[in-house]
Amino acid sequence: MKILIDGMGGDFAPKEIVKGAVRAAAEIDETIVILGPEDLIKKELDACRWSGSNIEIVNAAEVISNDETPAMAVRRKKDSTIVRGMNMIKDGEGDVLISGGSTGALLAAGLVVLGRLKGIRRPAIAAWFPALSEGGSTLLLDCGANVEAKPEYVYQNGIMGSIFVRAIKGIEKPSVKLLNIGAEAGKGDELHKEAYKMLSEADINFDGNIEGRDVIFGGCDVVVTDGFSGNIFLKSSEGMSLAIMGQFKKKLTEGVVAKAGAMLAYSKIKEIRKVFDYSDVGGAPILGLRGAVLKVHGNSKETEVYYAIHKAIPYVRNDVTGMIAEAVSHSDGLSAKKENGEDEGQE
Amino acid sequence: MKILIDGMGGDFAPKEIVKGAVRAAAEIDETIVILGPEDLIKKELDACRWSGSNIEIVNAAEVISNDETPAMAVRRKKDSTIVRGMNMIKDGEGDVLISGGSTGALLAAGLVVLGRLKGIRRPAIAAWFPALSEGGSTLLLDCGANVEAKPEYVYQNGIMGSIFVRAIKGIEKPSVKLLNIGAEAGKGDELHKEAYKMLSEADINFDGNIEGRDVIFGGCDVVVTDGFSGNIFLKSSEGMSLAIMGQFKKKLTEGVVAKAGAMLAYSKIKEIRKVFDYSDVGGAPILGLRGAVLKVHGNSKETEVYYAIHKAIPYVRNDVTGMIAEAVSHSDGLSAKKENGEDEGQE
Repeated sequence: MKILIDGMGGDFAPKEIVKGAVRAAAEIDETIVILGPEDLIKKELDACRWSGSNIEIVNAAEVISNDETPAMAVRRKKDSTIVRGMNMIKDGEGDVLISGGSTGALLAAGLVVLGRLKGIRRPAIAAWFPALSEGGSTLLLDCGANVEAKPEYVYQNGIMGSIFVRAIKGIEKPSVKLLNIGAEAGKGDELHKEAYKMLSEADINFDGNIEGRDVIFGGCDVVVTDGFSGNIFLKSSEGMSLAIMGQFKKKLTEGVVAKAGAMLAYSKIKEIRKVFDYSDVGGAPILGLRGAVLKVHGNSKETEVYYAIHKAIPYVRNDVTGMIAEAVSHSDGLSAKKENGEDEGQE
Repeated sequence: MKILIDGMGGDFAPKEIVKGAVRAAAEIDETIVILGPEDLIKKELDACRWSGSNIEIVNAAEVISNDETPAMAVRRKKDSTIVRGMNMIKDGEGDVLISGGSTGALLAAGLVVLGRLKGIRRPAIAAWFPALSEGGSTLLLDCGANVEAKPEYVYQNGIMGSIFVRAIKGIEKPSVKLLNIGAEAGKGDELHKEAYKMLSEADINFDGNIEGRDVIFGGCDVVVTDGFSGNIFLKSSEGMSLAIMGQFKKKLTEGVVAKAGAMLAYSKIKEIRKVFDYSDVGGAPILGLRGAVLKVHGNSKETEVYYAIHKAIPYVRNDVTGMIAEAVSHSDGLSAKKENGEDEGQE
């Protein structure tokens, strides 16, 4: 297996990317291929005193930044880490691409170079959300790959999410819920009512609606949503978490007494921070493409990169991409929708 | 001024409602009218040893529960606290109705009994969201009155929210932002792009998009959104807040050392809890009706009721309802949209 990683993606590239790759490479037999300017990557590898044989470098001179228009950047920067990586996946020179770069560019390059799986209406970005229950995380998709939503996309998210969670967590029939404004059936706007109906008829373990309040408390393996709501959900949860943790950090260092108290309670506070820490869950797969792509947060450091590499292995080994392709080819509801001649293009 | 309060609305009615009313009534000159079964309310008033003259009781024998279909319940239960209250507002026998009862029933009764203000496409539920900035709270609307969204509704939310915040907080030109999946202009689906354009042309202090992550950190006075996204935003933030606070409560009572630490840091932890506490912000107005209606949370206790009564006073005194009516009658963008002959009915 060859795991490709964008050496220039994210705020702390290439240093932290290379450090994460080195840490993972020491533990696994798979080959890690780092894409980026060769001299730069080599320098970082030397700084890590890496002497192993399962890290390779593929020279890619260009970088796509977050400020560029994704579609245009992908067209123009053929020698960028992202476009090179996608082409390697396409040509069978790599099995999965991990990147902390621009999500828009990853998605655009994925669509242009790899293309969608046959039958998939829209690829989706899936992210692990912390959960206060056994299992400790819930897969949420779509987190914002598609802002214009249709019920079929939400329905396909249910299928893709089920397959991914089965592959990564080994849960035979992952439970799937639909993010909605009420738990009862019949809630929501037309889009969500229609998506509910389609999910109910799908060959997955669909378990009804879930409200935004309840996701963090666990209770299901996959939460499906349209890209707009998913993005709002994810970012508002993240904002609240950052705000509260920030307040604890600030208030508990005000004054001697509170500081002493915080020191005594330190190990517990650390445990709590860990529960709500998104960093060790291992990246956000872009599902529905003809190849495995794993997006990591732009502010990822060594640890996040390390975990992402570990999570990439079962993603490839269990052939999530092939299983999604097969599931979609058997999906009647979907084919019926497709025959209606609806738009198949990606914005 | 007569402040009507639903004595039977919410999980802790009538006891906590009456206690909150008594606490507020002791401080204000306005008359508080409690609606509910007369003997029951009287008993609670006696339990509070109330001997003042500015609390009245209006007998209303029926209660609409959360389990009932709102529209049907409103039609059938003419003697319910909510329907009686709305009729009193309509007949000039009260200036504002406060209720912790079913939001759906309040909205349905508001539409049936009071009706929408001329020019208002859809009433919206507005809620105060905590903010870690000066001012300490942001008004968010719509929180879920309308699940099917149109750009015009979002645009009108901007106008209504501005007027309400000016009335309650005395901010001359409240800053308004649009909840969206990116901060830059041009982000989002068609609905949000169109709403952005309409808000830009409105006679309000519109300041662009805001992401879900940033609302808690303050930075604007009003956040406008469609009802679906607003509901997702509010509930996911609430879930995260509940989850983290719950973890702190649980973990900091595990073991002697952590417990001792928590005791030392107690006053600070209490301060933090207060920052993220929604209870003292004073209810969620339903804006756009021909009368002032204030929804309080179903789990409201004495304190929440007390604050809601205090916040109801400037809501009435500054004639928010009249000001919205006037602003909408002057709104050209809106009239243009209306001439397109779009549906004016409420689902």
